[in-house]
Amino acid sequence: MTLHISADRLRAFVASAYRTVGISESDANRIAELQTEADLRGADGHGVFRLPQYIRRIKAGGVNVAPNIRIERQTAAMALVDGDNGMGHLVMRFAAQTAIAKARQSGLAWVGVRMSNHAGPASLYATMPLAEGMIGLYFAVGNANHLAPWGGIELLLSTNPIAVAVPAREEMPIVLDMATTTAAYGKVKTAAQRGEPMPPGWMIDFQGKPLTDPKRSDEGMLLPLGGMEAGFKGYGLSLVIGLLAGTLNQATMGREVIDFNKDEHSVTNTGHAIVAIDPAAFGDADRFKNEVDRLIRDIRSSKRLPGVERIWLPGEQSQTKRIERMKNGIPLPQPLLESLNRTGAELGIEPLA
Amino acid sequence: MTLHISADRLRAFVASAYRTVGISESDANRIAELQTEADLRGADGHGVFRLPQYIRRIKAGGVNVAPNIRIERQTAAMALVDGDNGMGHLVMRFAAQTAIAKARQSGLAWVGVRMSNHAGPASLYATMPLAEGMIGLYFAVGNANHLAPWGGIELLLSTNPIAVAVPAREEMPIVLDMATTTAAYGKVKTAAQRGEPMPPGWMIDFQGKPLTDPKRSDEGMLLPLGGMEAGFKGYGLSLVIGLLAGTLNQATMGREVIDFNKDEHSVTNTGHAIVAIDPAAFGDADRFKNEVDRLIRDIRSSKRLPGVERIWLPGEQSQTKRIERMKNGIPLPQPLLESLNRTGAELGIEPLA
Repeated sequence: MTLHISADRLRAFVASAYRTVGISESDANRIAELQTEADLRGADGHGVFRLPQYIRRIKAGGVNVAPNIRIERQTAAMALVDGDNGMGHLVMRFAAQTAIAKARQSGLAWVGVRMSNHAGPASLYATMPLAEGMIGLYFAVGNANHLAPWGGIELLLSTNPIAVAVPAREEMPIVLDMATTTAAYGKVKTAAQRGEPMPPGWMIDFQGKPLTDPKRSDEGMLLPLGGMEAGFKGYGLSLVIGLLAGTLNQATMGREVIDFNKDEHSVTNTGHAIVAIDPAAFGDADRFKNEVDRLIRDIRSSKRLPGVERIWLPGEQSQTKRIERMKNGIPLPQPLLESLNRTGAELGIEPLA
Repeated sequence: MTLHISADRLRAFVASAYRTVGISESDANRIAELQTEADLRGADGHGVFRLPQYIRRIKAGGVNVAPNIRIERQTAAMALVDGDNGMGHLVMRFAAQTAIAKARQSGLAWVGVRMSNHAGPASLYATMPLAEGMIGLYFAVGNANHLAPWGGIELLLSTNPIAVAVPAREEMPIVLDMATTTAAYGKVKTAAQRGEPMPPGWMIDFQGKPLTDPKRSDEGMLLPLGGMEAGFKGYGLSLVIGLLAGTLNQATMGREVIDFNKDEHSVTNTGHAIVAIDPAAFGDADRFKNEVDRLIRDIRSSKRLPGVERIWLPGEQSQTKRIERMKNGIPLPQPLLESLNRTGAELGIEPLA
């Protein structure tokens, strides 16, 4: 049994949950908007699925409900934002707006972020510059280490994601959003909640053997992108993204990273980075978007391997899903609905359904 | 039989080859410096291995031997460089210097490049900002399409590499340099020259079956990073790197890319991008480098999988190789030596050995 619920209804539920724990109405609305947007796009492991955990962390005092989010250092080309331990969604929204405003003047801007928290799917922020006709890039340090260095078994690295969003003219934008592991850890959590096994390439145990039971995920580690054959590349990507999003911004990285699934009290000092690039600084912006259209069409209409029905562009399935979910509602599997209603009951708000 | 030759001797041979085909002495020295550096670092598929091909292309009129490399557009944070169809090494050297100079003022700068050519290994340019204590990022459009969109068989994409170099304090810098395919095409060419088979994960044929004979590489395509399990991620990375390094800079991308292994006449209009980031803009630069040292040491000394002797940082093997090759010379396998001497004989210069 999977209930389908409208985005409006879900957004209202999420906003009232955050208001109840002391977040201002405008901030609660901003967080609810972004978390519901994650579900609309199909990022099921990163949307309202995380609400109970976020609320527990706020109640435990792990997150500042009234942060003074501010620019700490800046030039025309960059800024360092201090999130004052606020909800990651609020901090990253501020950082993206800062990057866009600077890029409008300088053609391009890079904003690093420290003292933030888990902010949901990477694509939420990489896509923000699209509304201004700009390209967005986003990097983050993941909020729990589930990855070891290549050849190692100590969990010193996270799924450190990268997202890149590129505007087109008539076509939907290209939106890449990927963990630097074969699978994101949110997918492991979703599989555990659904009681489904994992494919053999997602995780290995500390002897190097495949691990497929998501309930045993504590007994192993994620495989870096590239798998057994070229996983040194995924390891390298995770590491340099962590350096750019974490270390450069005086945020946590490596051994310091707080596992926010297990520790609800400690300040995570999560680091992110967002880059906004205005194609108009590099040439004619319309010509650029036309070229992106052409590339999308060339790829979509290109010859396929036997058995393949359609070639997808990065982000196309997610944007298709968004249209479908706006129309038919967001599916909430029974365990997720129960978990949300339990959180709602604890906060004294109306159940979702 | 593998001859070992000193970097000085190789550099002099390469420089005289370029002088003979009409490149100025100072430019010939710059190119020779970078191409020899590639071999010192162990990028065997991207160093002097390519000399005969570069010379053929110059003789065929495919490259401008006296380019007017210039900034076409700029702000304090970015520039678009037009390489005037010069050797990629010269164009990218100019672009990296431009990015470093701008980053010194703005904390960070992004330089896009058009009308360039193949420039050798990505790490050559990503590492240039290191001398100034800066982080370097480099992206490029590869010079031949050997990759299909995920699920497709048309070669619309290339191995589009990414390189990131991060300075440390006492430790060697971290230098990631990777193609977005499981293996770079240069490795396929090296395997073919050495008569060695490829591992099954490098290429597939147009029916989707593994292809292991490098001499049959025309009958298939490279697998994107992530392989059969998560290759949609490598496909996505290759695509967005191509958009940032190619399309954004009005350079070729997708169907337009010239296969420089087969076509020695057409202007390739190769695109690249380089980013220089000054850690001092984000905080105390020494603190940053100390943190990088700490991370490197944490990773190197972390627990290993059974059978693993050592955990390497990205770029560490390459830098270790450089020290060894500076001391003992650069190994030139017999087929490579013969190929270089053939080129030398055609140009009327002394054989290498």
